[in-house]
Amino acid sequence: MRFGLFGGARTSMGDQPSDSQQLHDFIDYVVEAEELGFESVFLVEHHFTGFGQVSASLNLLSFLAAQTRRMRLGTAVMVLPWHNPALLAEQAATVDVLSGGRLDLGVGRGYRYNEFHGFRMDMDEAEARYQECLSFIRKAWTTQGRFSHRGKYWNYDDVVVEPAPLQRPHPPLWIGANSAASIIKTANDGMNLLIAQHGTPEVVGEKIAIFRDAVEKAGRVFDPFSAGVTRALHVCYTPEERNRQHELRIRFMRNVQELSLPPSGPVAGNHFQGHGDEADMRRKTETDALIGTPEEIIARLKVYEAAGIRHMLLMDVGGSREALRIFGREVMPEFRENSVS
Amino acid sequence: MRFGLFGGARTSMGDQPSDSQQLHDFIDYVVEAEELGFESVFLVEHHFTGFGQVSASLNLLSFLAAQTRRMRLGTAVMVLPWHNPALLAEQAATVDVLSGGRLDLGVGRGYRYNEFHGFRMDMDEAEARYQECLSFIRKAWTTQGRFSHRGKYWNYDDVVVEPAPLQRPHPPLWIGANSAASIIKTANDGMNLLIAQHGTPEVVGEKIAIFRDAVEKAGRVFDPFSAGVTRALHVCYTPEERNRQHELRIRFMRNVQELSLPPSGPVAGNHFQGHGDEADMRRKTETDALIGTPEEIIARLKVYEAAGIRHMLLMDVGGSREALRIFGREVMPEFRENSVS
Repeated sequence: MRFGLFGGARTSMGDQPSDSQQLHDFIDYVVEAEELGFESVFLVEHHFTGFGQVSASLNLLSFLAAQTRRMRLGTAVMVLPWHNPALLAEQAATVDVLSGGRLDLGVGRGYRYNEFHGFRMDMDEAEARYQECLSFIRKAWTTQGRFSHRGKYWNYDDVVVEPAPLQRPHPPLWIGANSAASIIKTANDGMNLLIAQHGTPEVVGEKIAIFRDAVEKAGRVFDPFSAGVTRALHVCYTPEERNRQHELRIRFMRNVQELSLPPSGPVAGNHFQGHGDEADMRRKTETDALIGTPEEIIARLKVYEAAGIRHMLLMDVGGSREALRIFGREVMPEFRENSVS
Repeated sequence: MRFGLFGGARTSMGDQPSDSQQLHDFIDYVVEAEELGFESVFLVEHHFTGFGQVSASLNLLSFLAAQTRRMRLGTAVMVLPWHNPALLAEQAATVDVLSGGRLDLGVGRGYRYNEFHGFRMDMDEAEARYQECLSFIRKAWTTQGRFSHRGKYWNYDDVVVEPAPLQRPHPPLWIGANSAASIIKTANDGMNLLIAQHGTPEVVGEKIAIFRDAVEKAGRVFDPFSAGVTRALHVCYTPEERNRQHELRIRFMRNVQELSLPPSGPVAGNHFQGHGDEADMRRKTETDALIGTPEEIIARLKVYEAAGIRHMLLMDVGGSREALRIFGREVMPEFRENSVS
């Protein structure tokens, strides 16, 4: 099993160190993670949260490209509806070039009401904007010479998008998918799969199996690292610490839920909007998150491994460098012999 | 006198090294420039040129933030009409934070027809878009808490732009200005001044004097480094080399002119669109550019110094590391005692 980081999520959530301190702490955290053997970092893109989540994700990855040597630099995800497709294609290609071809470009439609509200964009447009932007980026990265584009949301004439990305035909594209239909479409589109923070090992394993089958039915060889599963990580030793970590996790889920919910209430299929009450949330954190001692986390990860998961992205909200080191030194070696790197 | 780099302009112009090689060569060039004593780098932002000019300038600056320690990291300029103001404010603030407060944000309206054509944007909108975007960025950087914005081109509801920049109240804003009226407005707006690549030392000195007077009339102390003058630099020793450097310079001017000209012909006041014929261009390169032996360049710079110029940005299109070293070792020491760093 390979491990990566997910988030850019060392947010203050009210504890208020400066934005600058937070960002530099996170950079040090990622650099140490590479030394400990983490093989990727996937950054979120979020706006207007009020608790300092990463907004300019590709700028932070550009800096990390200079500070790291081997790890893959990913987004999970760039929210395409908010971006000018040509500027985004240039920015992502620049990160790919700067990093020596280490970009993994995760893309998505966005799911938080708060952000669409901020941009004054109708969430109903998200799907069409996403499709158009993604289609433009693929075209920009695979077209020789100049081309034009006529769309519903963007238009270009006689453009050539420079620089070209280093990875050919282009950096791997990743997308979060949940339903069987979306997962099969992801495979058929030749994209890699991101699975979000919720669901039991069995449920997640089933999704990976659907993805693998679809990739193989499409006539390609399934790469077990082309499917990344995100889990919250909280190392703790005492019952008090365990409670505090559950509370931290629940506080984070509640923040995300608040930012996601439209005033009209939850939208069907948006799994960030309906976590239920405190007891429901506690049950979810027990089931989904990696909260416990190193031994408990190893045991939990063995279950994920048995379910077919080979690429685990860890999200340690408000987490410590100490937890990272414990994971790197005590948990990761248990899975090293299975790594195919 | 202080020296900086201008451009990001080590473009192939048809010689076609890969985009990646070009970008990494440029990075090495900037890193060595810092070692030689250059105090700033100002990157252009250009799109769809077909000869590899920097497009994602703030991503390249993010990488340079990690590779350099002291030098100021500037844009000259970010073209505001093409950018989503909130995303740009986040990206620029992120560069400021990543670099420890070294961002100099040059902003402008854009002047190349080719780029507006590519974005399918009417150049007549450039001024209004520029003003609205700049006003939003200032507001985002100086407002405590959430705010909304209603404009002609962009709208936002209840946004808080994170991260906050490190420099307070915000990174210095720079703008290219040419006419006396624009220069006076730049001073009154509290912005720094960029003077482009054309004009004799006398003409440039006069502009600096207008700027200084306006700053002092506004009740502030004039900082001689708040006005940067860009000049092309080509070190050469033989008549053949001199001719080749003039030809290179003229070829670059012609490229820019072609990208700038609308099909309907030159627009009044756009000094990139009307360089005239080959003989006119040669006269301009003789007058404006720093082309010659180190001794000739020193003599020319002394004239600029006598005219009141203290901050010179050098643009070495297709230039060599060797020329940079010669400048750093033979030319810069002649001006070091006047530096007020």
